[in-house]
Amino acid sequence: MVVSTEKMDGIVSMSRADLTAEVEPGVITGELKRRASEMGLFYPPDPASSEFSSIGGNISENAGGLRAIKYGSTSNYVLGLEVVLPTGAILWLGRHTHKGVVGYSLKDLFIGSEGTLGIITRAVLRLIPMPRTTSVLLVTYSDASASASAVKGILGTGILPSALEFMDRASLSAVSAYRGTEVFGEKAGSALLIEVDGTEEETGKAIEKIRAACREGAVSMEVSHGPEAEGLWSARRAISPALAKIRPFKLNEDVVVPLSKLPELVSGVDRIAGEMDLRYANFGHAGDGNIHVNLLYDEKDGGEHERALRAVDMVFDLVIRLGGTISGEHGVGITKLAYITKELSPAAHELMRGIKRLVDPNNIMNPGKAL
Amino acid sequence: MVVSTEKMDGIVSMSRADLTAEVEPGVITGELKRRASEMGLFYPPDPASSEFSSIGGNISENAGGLRAIKYGSTSNYVLGLEVVLPTGAILWLGRHTHKGVVGYSLKDLFIGSEGTLGIITRAVLRLIPMPRTTSVLLVTYSDASASASAVKGILGTGILPSALEFMDRASLSAVSAYRGTEVFGEKAGSALLIEVDGTEEETGKAIEKIRAACREGAVSMEVSHGPEAEGLWSARRAISPALAKIRPFKLNEDVVVPLSKLPELVSGVDRIAGEMDLRYANFGHAGDGNIHVNLLYDEKDGGEHERALRAVDMVFDLVIRLGGTISGEHGVGITKLAYITKELSPAAHELMRGIKRLVDPNNIMNPGKAL
Repeated sequence: MVVSTEKMDGIVSMSRADLTAEVEPGVITGELKRRASEMGLFYPPDPASSEFSSIGGNISENAGGLRAIKYGSTSNYVLGLEVVLPTGAILWLGRHTHKGVVGYSLKDLFIGSEGTLGIITRAVLRLIPMPRTTSVLLVTYSDASASASAVKGILGTGILPSALEFMDRASLSAVSAYRGTEVFGEKAGSALLIEVDGTEEETGKAIEKIRAACREGAVSMEVSHGPEAEGLWSARRAISPALAKIRPFKLNEDVVVPLSKLPELVSGVDRIAGEMDLRYANFGHAGDGNIHVNLLYDEKDGGEHERALRAVDMVFDLVIRLGGTISGEHGVGITKLAYITKELSPAAHELMRGIKRLVDPNNIMNPGKAL
Repeated sequence: MVVSTEKMDGIVSMSRADLTAEVEPGVITGELKRRASEMGLFYPPDPASSEFSSIGGNISENAGGLRAIKYGSTSNYVLGLEVVLPTGAILWLGRHTHKGVVGYSLKDLFIGSEGTLGIITRAVLRLIPMPRTTSVLLVTYSDASASASAVKGILGTGILPSALEFMDRASLSAVSAYRGTEVFGEKAGSALLIEVDGTEEETGKAIEKIRAACREGAVSMEVSHGPEAEGLWSARRAISPALAKIRPFKLNEDVVVPLSKLPELVSGVDRIAGEMDLRYANFGHAGDGNIHVNLLYDEKDGGEHERALRAVDMVFDLVIRLGGTISGEHGVGITKLAYITKELSPAAHELMRGIKRLVDPNNIMNPGKAL
């Protein structure tokens, strides 16, 4: 079955037989996911912003999101791209098939390039069959370090969850304030939200194993399905806007460390925020080692803003020392530009600039960003 | 647990906590897979050559193999690369973490570049937990088109098999002749070898569903596990060397078409081989739409060799017409160089050449290959 719907919403075609979709860049990710699901198909990338971010934006940032732990980031689902170069040349990169290795993988050069090489005008995406069912386990702990330490045990079960999200106390209480109700339980000082997908038999057994691995030190554990689980995910997605309930502004970072370093990251951020006298919230994709470190401040308080900027610098240094990266899925843009040399070697950075000059010699594509 | 074994075999480290391995390029893929499995970990890429191909080679070709249908090709498991450029500069590309988007994804430019940009000297790979168990279903049909048509029904079950391999009559009889025993049953005119992985409950139910989807027109269906299943995989891996039992030489192509076009590919190759009076064997990764089309000939018979070369050209034209690619996982090298402009647009090809000139202006890295 191929559904052709070009006129409707930018989804040019979707094929159950080919397990592919062809889309224009403006398609909203959540809409693509719903349309695929109506055909029994699954587009796995699931940024928390899926209801308002577009596929073109997801590709330009190589968006990750909640299901990357099992299914990978956007780049794993892009088979082909049509791009317009600064010269006006229209390039077709990649393919319509599930595999292919002819020529350099230029599509991967454009994925995550933040609009600095060309304009994406069309994408061919890989879809997979929709998993039968999902089960969600919410485990709360008294503090953040207990959650961070539990991740190792969960991954040690041999089960690869389809999501493994971490939320610290500030994230939990911000959501509760935002929603006007205690979403995650009053006693929760931190929480893990763990999803497994597959057949019913499988997810039931998997959740039991993960529950056993989480038990030590847990304050509460609760399994949910369907609308109840959807409610938890919706609360999780609300963290970012909810943080304004604590302080009006935030520096929202997007760091990743090797999985074993998560506890050190969490304790290190706490130490830095203490030294800088700042409130903060940590949450995110613990199963990828990818934590959104939000340093909160009020712009009217110049000293606080200044301390937040200093704290960002210290967090990035900590992340690099732990063998990590300063951006897992949000990209560099303008705000991280000053920091990328902490991570990129001069030789790698120079090669990237060389490619930029080759493709866009007049520097007209999103100038001043990313590199 | 981090195992450090640098002295032994090129596996620098392997970490269950981080779900990563750091390796030198000479590590044999099968050895890495075994070492990971001893720690309960899984390195999914599984080229049929895994017992003698190396990780460095797999990365340079972006090798796919038997498990790509579910797990993707090598590129999905490369987190970071150390490469030496023609200038002698040593570059670190990518990262040690499971995600990261700082700078252009230059590691993906080097993956599949066939040694034309630099020399890979180190790789950081992503591992996942080892699936609990696998079940294998061997289904035979009277002819190739029945197998090719069954693929759609299998993928329509909503189950994503961990392998979905196709073998035509010539492939089956070559293996039987090579092994001196009828491996796949006397009546088999083609076969599908389907593996599912997961928990025992899951794989049992999944195999039953797939069996139901395969039933129509099947000559035989048999489920196997453990050593018996291993025997089938070993026979499958033996096809390529076994083809010398039919004719001493082969042109082994590696084409991919959209999944729905598999039946047209199979019937088209049969027609072309008939016109050119050639024997041939088709086998490969049907679940990816990736078929190894082997055109068989004897070099002593100049006319036959000539006809085989003409048939390759016709097969490639067919593949492009079906929306496919002329190489899914083996790369271009020298032998496909004359054909890549059938697939690459002049603008894309020129950009690739521009990048080659930028990185290797003196053209000293594997000159004359790939582009």
